[in-house]
Amino acid sequence: MTYCIGVKLDQGLVFLSDSRTNAGLDSIGTFRKMMIYERPGDRFMVMLTAGNLSISQQVREILQNERLAEGDGPPITIWNATMILGGQIGTESMRLFLVYSAGNFIEATKETCFFQIGESKYGKPVLDRMIHPGTPLDEAAKCVLVSMDSTLKSNLSVGLPLDLVVYQAGSLQSDQIVCIDEQNPYFRMIRETWGQRLREVFESLDAPEWNGEADALAPLVVPARRYERMKRITHPGERIV
Amino acid sequence: MTYCIGVKLDQGLVFLSDSRTNAGLDSIGTFRKMMIYERPGDRFMVMLTAGNLSISQQVREILQNERLAEGDGPPITIWNATMILGGQIGTESMRLFLVYSAGNFIEATKETCFFQIGESKYGKPVLDRMIHPGTPLDEAAKCVLVSMDSTLKSNLSVGLPLDLVVYQAGSLQSDQIVCIDEQNPYFRMIRETWGQRLREVFESLDAPEWNGEADALAPLVVPARRYERMKRITHPGERIV
Repeated sequence: MTYCIGVKLDQGLVFLSDSRTNAGLDSIGTFRKMMIYERPGDRFMVMLTAGNLSISQQVREILQNERLAEGDGPPITIWNATMILGGQIGTESMRLFLVYSAGNFIEATKETCFFQIGESKYGKPVLDRMIHPGTPLDEAAKCVLVSMDSTLKSNLSVGLPLDLVVYQAGSLQSDQIVCIDEQNPYFRMIRETWGQRLREVFESLDAPEWNGEADALAPLVVPARRYERMKRITHPGERIV
Repeated sequence: MTYCIGVKLDQGLVFLSDSRTNAGLDSIGTFRKMMIYERPGDRFMVMLTAGNLSISQQVREILQNERLAEGDGPPITIWNATMILGGQIGTESMRLFLVYSAGNFIEATKETCFFQIGESKYGKPVLDRMIHPGTPLDEAAKCVLVSMDSTLKSNLSVGLPLDLVVYQAGSLQSDQIVCIDEQNPYFRMIRETWGQRLREVFESLDAPEWNGEADALAPLVVPARRYERMKRITHPGERIV
């Protein structure tokens, strides 16, 4: 599987992808899922792919070699991989797309400013909480790394190294491109600190009070206020085989 | 959809379920997915179901009315719903099972002490980080509620009210059974405090340093130490249509 994120913010774009592929539990590979197309001063684009690797690579190949196609018509492409495609051309606005395997696509808006592909659920809660169009680029980079950390922790099919790109709106190039491996000091710090502080926050939350007094701040059960206790099946005939 | 969790700890068992069902976006219902079978002093069992509601309810019905079956043979049951089943009978050990829709099952162990059914991915990272067999019951109850909060925040198909049960090993009954709705003070506190403190922890993490100096604690890119920057495709012919 795969986990990739693309974020479009007022300040720019952020992309993160993992690199694990497999064709069975004993055939695990590491392949780049991120392609960066940059012509400084003219355009800057990033493509992230999930799905069948041979087809993803074929699509890339076709896109890269399109100038070799004969005639003037558009080349015929085979789409069988979900992908995130984003960037900026000349004086146009930045754009970020999620392209479905059927070939149709949606574009990021103020309301939905990030897309995920692959194993997206584990890392979605932190993005939902933290990312909005006004989020600064560095904070968004931090957030996608935390989201990736949660995914790596819960799902074996997503793996290091990661590819991270941060693009500043209007720059038409980027120097903030990095491949993050096990030794990367920042990602190691994120993994250790986030896990540890999450535990501290968790421990700082009050334990449930099952018999809250009238003055309790946040009781789980307050008999006086008649929070309904659930009924149980208790008659003697009941049994489970 | 559904989100249910069952946890087996040294101290006891914890169960949590949501109550949303739907058969289309405009046909949303609230149904109990948790059934509690208690005969104080003899046995205490909890069943959580996910999947086709009519079949879940039929299975419950068959289990509840088994005494009415004719003859001495075991009743014939239809299994088409994943379920979590756990509890304790007499002097036996507590047991917790995940029953697949095909009818086969697995049992919780020290290594895998919790099961989830339904929309399980959003809320898995926090369980992975916090739950182990030694976790106290109150802490586990807090943890399953945090896990449910993350799921509610990221997935519309999981909804309040929640049913929570905490069972203490050996007690063969439980008074810690509660139905949690929007007004429950403890769950409201969890939702607000967890989100806010998560944000504080997030903000307390250092922003990435793209050009780390030799004395930086956790730089994202350290040119001196040759953390590989990714190559880009920059030759002029490259373009994406």
